[in-house]
Amino acid sequence: LVALPHANAQTDPLPSWNEGAAKKSITDFVARVTTQGGTDFVPVPERIATFDNDGTLWTEQPFYFQLAFAFDRVKATAPRHPEWKTTQPFKALLDNDMKGLAAAGEKGLLQIVAVTHAGMTTEEFARTVLDWTSTARHPRFHRPYTELVYQPMLELLTYLRANGFKTFVVSGGGVEFMRPWMEKVYGIPPEQVVGSSGVVKFQIGASGKPELMKLPKIEFVDDGSGKPVGINRFIGRRPIFAFGNSDGDLQMLQWTAAGEGARFAGLVHHTDAEREYAYDRSSKFGKLDKAWDEAVKRGWLVVDMKQDWKTVFPFEK
Amino acid sequence: LVALPHANAQTDPLPSWNEGAAKKSITDFVARVTTQGGTDFVPVPERIATFDNDGTLWTEQPFYFQLAFAFDRVKATAPRHPEWKTTQPFKALLDNDMKGLAAAGEKGLLQIVAVTHAGMTTEEFARTVLDWTSTARHPRFHRPYTELVYQPMLELLTYLRANGFKTFVVSGGGVEFMRPWMEKVYGIPPEQVVGSSGVVKFQIGASGKPELMKLPKIEFVDDGSGKPVGINRFIGRRPIFAFGNSDGDLQMLQWTAAGEGARFAGLVHHTDAEREYAYDRSSKFGKLDKAWDEAVKRGWLVVDMKQDWKTVFPFEK
Ligand SMILES: [Ca+2]
Ligand SMILES: [Ca+2]
Repeated sequence: LVALPHANAQTDPLPSWNEGAAKKSITDFVARVTTQGGTDFVPVPERIATFDNDGTLWTEQPFYFQLAFAFDRVKATAPRHPEWKTTQPFKALLDNDMKGLAAAGEKGLLQIVAVTHAGMTTEEFARTVLDWTSTARHPRFHRPYTELVYQPMLELLTYLRANGFKTFVVSGGGVEFMRPWMEKVYGIPPEQVVGSSGVVKFQIGASGKPELMKLPKIEFVDDGSGKPVGINRFIGRRPIFAFGNSDGDLQMLQWTAAGEGARFAGLVHHTDAEREYAYDRSSKFGKLDKAWDEAVKRGWLVVDMKQDWKTVFPFEK
Repeated sequence: LVALPHANAQTDPLPSWNEGAAKKSITDFVARVTTQGGTDFVPVPERIATFDNDGTLWTEQPFYFQLAFAFDRVKATAPRHPEWKTTQPFKALLDNDMKGLAAAGEKGLLQIVAVTHAGMTTEEFARTVLDWTSTARHPRFHRPYTELVYQPMLELLTYLRANGFKTFVVSGGGVEFMRPWMEKVYGIPPEQVVGSSGVVKFQIGASGKPELMKLPKIEFVDDGSGKPVGINRFIGRRPIFAFGNSDGDLQMLQWTAAGEGARFAGLVHHTDAEREYAYDRSSKFGKLDKAWDEAVKRGWLVVDMKQDWKTVFPFEK
């Protein structure tokens, strides 16, 4: 019997994954937990899958895309802030002085995030994000940032949902930055996006209409130990499947893997400088060090992007 | 043509609601937003419905059931806390000295909540809650608290879901107290329960297994202005349908009603001392005053429990 390529493509739920141990570990796990009467069967409501976003579902280099958004917003709104011309870290950013920006450190970045993510209603912010995703372009790929999503992971999300899983994003990124576009791009609705957040205040606006105002104060950081905490807070169930790519995902993977019954924990290892980027233990964004060691020790899946992925981005096809 | 009672019961999605303006306002609204091509049509993903819990889905008299849980837990664990015999507010509670307990005020209640809701893992707490719901009995109805749910509201939840709505609880109650039983009782899964919460800490436990420890510190109060904030944080979409019963729901209803397109805002008014309880403007639990005035002003539905509900509790049938 000859399997026609077309027929194959229709029946393979993960066509952008090369055949091998990585792909097999995923399909084996899904078969185990969905087989009625099997010892590892998991009822549909318990099939919770959580995914990190930056570096797991979309690219995070040369720096987090939310930071690119914040930088672009500073530049776009600079005419309304003449004081930025002489105040750091804004001056460095407006002068494209990356050394000066680096000198401002994390404190400088937080200042930039605060002024670009607050002082407007949640609805105004969402519109700003959607405007940016439709107009901004990635410096290397010259495409909208929302096109720099991983085709194999899109297939994995669809495959899990087709098998009764509820898919969630659990990201260190800002929840208000992610929700406006994730339903369209990942098929993940706003109520299944968990992320970091700033304080929001309910008030009756100038027009007499109620509104939610974003304040320049961080409320919750959904990273590291914050991830299992965020999962508990927002989802209220322990995932049976989790995927990340960096040390910020270690506790989410530990929490997932430590549950009773069949559990799946996976990491994306960025090994493909040609098609995407190659980085791990010493990267500034998406450092993969302790979580990698733990994955090896525990037998979690570590995806080798270069080896395991036939296609990286949807636009390659 | 004669409609047989049996056939009627099958086709009426809200059989415990008496015919009248209240029932009609609900079915009219659902018809409007689900009619393809109609001016008020709302796509399925946007059909978000939020419900308060205490006094809206289940009884809240003679006091909030979560308080009954906390009191019962103090009594059950008193042998491990000999110091409570001489310390307020615990002494008053153990002596059934309701006057002394009242004298301890809100501060005393918070102390009781703190000791009964913290110092254990989230999983231990969930087991404690389920043990309580299966053994504790309501002082007037002598039934498990989870049987004191409103049959008309159960039908409303089912009816909305059958029409493509996603139903959420948005309650001032503790989220960890509600999630363990709501899926079974209301058909609402943990990830669709929004509530108040305490701080939770991720740690590697004594056995080397990761765990989430509940700390005696309040993190978020999902009441009043906190309700639209909680809706934004957990759901990330504005509801098109919301139901409450007290002033703590005012801002949720305002936020819901102020959205564009068709919106539904409703209140349960407790008018039936015989079958349940009658209370409103001067009640200690579930005070309905400002929200009632606003409902009248805005034309929101105010359900008259005595008039509008054929059945109150499932066990009456
Ligand atoms: Ca990441
Ligand atoms: Ca209430």
